[in-house]
Amino acid sequence: MSANLTVAVDAMSGDKGTGVIVDAVRQVLNARSDAHLLLVGDPDEINRHIGNNPLPQGRAEIVPASEVVNMEDSVAIALRNKKKSSMRIAIDQVKSGRAAAAVSSGNTSALMAISKFVLKTVPGIDRPAICTTIPAVNGHTHMLDLGANVDCSADHLFQFAAMGSILAQAIDGAQQPSVGLLNIGSEDIKGNVQVKEAAELLTHSTLNYIGFVEGNEIYTDRADVVVCDGFVGNVSLKTSEGVARMVSLYLKEEFMRTPMNKLVGLLAKPILRSFGNRIDPRRYNGASLLGLKGVVIKSHGSADAVAFANAINIALLEIANDVPSMITKRMNQSLSSIA
Amino acid sequence: MSANLTVAVDAMSGDKGTGVIVDAVRQVLNARSDAHLLLVGDPDEINRHIGNNPLPQGRAEIVPASEVVNMEDSVAIALRNKKKSSMRIAIDQVKSGRAAAAVSSGNTSALMAISKFVLKTVPGIDRPAICTTIPAVNGHTHMLDLGANVDCSADHLFQFAAMGSILAQAIDGAQQPSVGLLNIGSEDIKGNVQVKEAAELLTHSTLNYIGFVEGNEIYTDRADVVVCDGFVGNVSLKTSEGVARMVSLYLKEEFMRTPMNKLVGLLAKPILRSFGNRIDPRRYNGASLLGLKGVVIKSHGSADAVAFANAINIALLEIANDVPSMITKRMNQSLSSIA
Repeated sequence: MSANLTVAVDAMSGDKGTGVIVDAVRQVLNARSDAHLLLVGDPDEINRHIGNNPLPQGRAEIVPASEVVNMEDSVAIALRNKKKSSMRIAIDQVKSGRAAAAVSSGNTSALMAISKFVLKTVPGIDRPAICTTIPAVNGHTHMLDLGANVDCSADHLFQFAAMGSILAQAIDGAQQPSVGLLNIGSEDIKGNVQVKEAAELLTHSTLNYIGFVEGNEIYTDRADVVVCDGFVGNVSLKTSEGVARMVSLYLKEEFMRTPMNKLVGLLAKPILRSFGNRIDPRRYNGASLLGLKGVVIKSHGSADAVAFANAINIALLEIANDVPSMITKRMNQSLSSIA
Repeated sequence: MSANLTVAVDAMSGDKGTGVIVDAVRQVLNARSDAHLLLVGDPDEINRHIGNNPLPQGRAEIVPASEVVNMEDSVAIALRNKKKSSMRIAIDQVKSGRAAAAVSSGNTSALMAISKFVLKTVPGIDRPAICTTIPAVNGHTHMLDLGANVDCSADHLFQFAAMGSILAQAIDGAQQPSVGLLNIGSEDIKGNVQVKEAAELLTHSTLNYIGFVEGNEIYTDRADVVVCDGFVGNVSLKTSEGVARMVSLYLKEEFMRTPMNKLVGLLAKPILRSFGNRIDPRRYNGASLLGLKGVVIKSHGSADAVAFANAINIALLEIANDVPSMITKRMNQSLSSIA
């Protein structure tokens, strides 16, 4: 039997509303005849967006949920007081085995806390990490952690490396993905204590560890996986967004500066559009919460249908490659090689 | 009497050689009739580059130095075994009062160590920090620390904030520069212990503290000064370089893709050049080593004459605004307000 390609989709979270999520579900179901999707949320709201254009029969189901976790909700509120939220019930579907993955555009902290509480981490993983795909000069890089863990020990960084390596295998089909440790210099003497200790652990592991990488090398093809603590990873990712936005704005301003520039801009429009597509963050939407007994994907809060569909597709890839079991297996190996 | 606008220039360090530095010196002396520059290094080498085109009489002098700190030299070697290096003698000029600032394209770690050893830090500053100017959507942002201090306490972050604020006053003429603390979310509960404690200190200070800023906000006009520890700052800065380089490459590739695109690219050339100038890192060359009893500016190792001249101009601005004394004054105020 092939994998249970069922994904529970939180249809109520995200800034763009349920309509965008229903559109994304439709796109995925049309493209993938093997996928099965559960839309979790208010049935009236979901049906209103399905309208007169029914989803493929037998491959889409509505799972009712009467509450929604808001962006302002604290983790405690989300966890204790909103047990009927679309986010919680989507994750419950993974726990019960009805779905193999959950996707949500909601509050990251709440999604992480609920996932940890309901699904638990796999043995050998202390803390789940958030991993996303980042465009690079020739391909892309997987980077983690992106904000789930602010203070990390060397062991945590080692666990992130092991998980990132498995994710890269699943998504890219790479046999031995190269793993780099983010640092502020390539010399051995640089960096903080945790990074130096993690380098030691990685050097003696079976991972394809290639040493320290610097911030600029995230965007080259130096490493398939870049590992760092969640504070550094989050700052780095958001810095990148800031730079990309500023550069795009500068480019637009230059092409608008004079009537002549505008004319050239019209001619250059298809070229600039093709350039824009290459740095379009929607292509990379869908961050993996790794280290849980189940697949959980966080979509960007402002994801549109194309971006949300991409997050669902990542969930399907992780199910097909059984990422949680692969992480469990890897951690068992690491533990037994230490013992 | 006006400030002693004398800058000691390390003429031997940097990847591009002495010629570039002599050119930069010439540019600055031609543009600024009040500036006085000391070229520190091998007189033969310097004179060879000056050639038959003498520098403005009375405003340029050669100070001999027989050694050079290499990029590979450890801090210990640079500090103990190279007391006649161009870097050391440039800083010695500041110590003796012959110059008010030193500029070098050499090894950052060595420059920081020698500066600390020779000049000492001003009272109230435990560790000097590296601060640079970063382009932002409407203007620029001053960011520190960029790698001098890997592990920072809340007190250190507070000192960085105070120093960055004074630098922004000096360079931009802003009366009360806004100061933000780099964090992974704008909520009070986010971040690591040091950042939360630093926020507490800043809230009760006389600085114009505006709260937490996220990575993307470095490139907006949210804060004039962004404060972080050296690990995070270095990763963020290098990440930005990586993104900018990748984006430029993508843009070039799109304009080269087809003969038609190339033709449009020819038409768009002045626009693209003007765009390139706006993100040209040379415009921002020159990082300040703040917190020392003297002005020390680190130029990028691969700086060309335009970029190196920019670093000298920053030194002149810091001398004119007496940044070291302003930092001393500010720290005295802080200490007495605590006492």
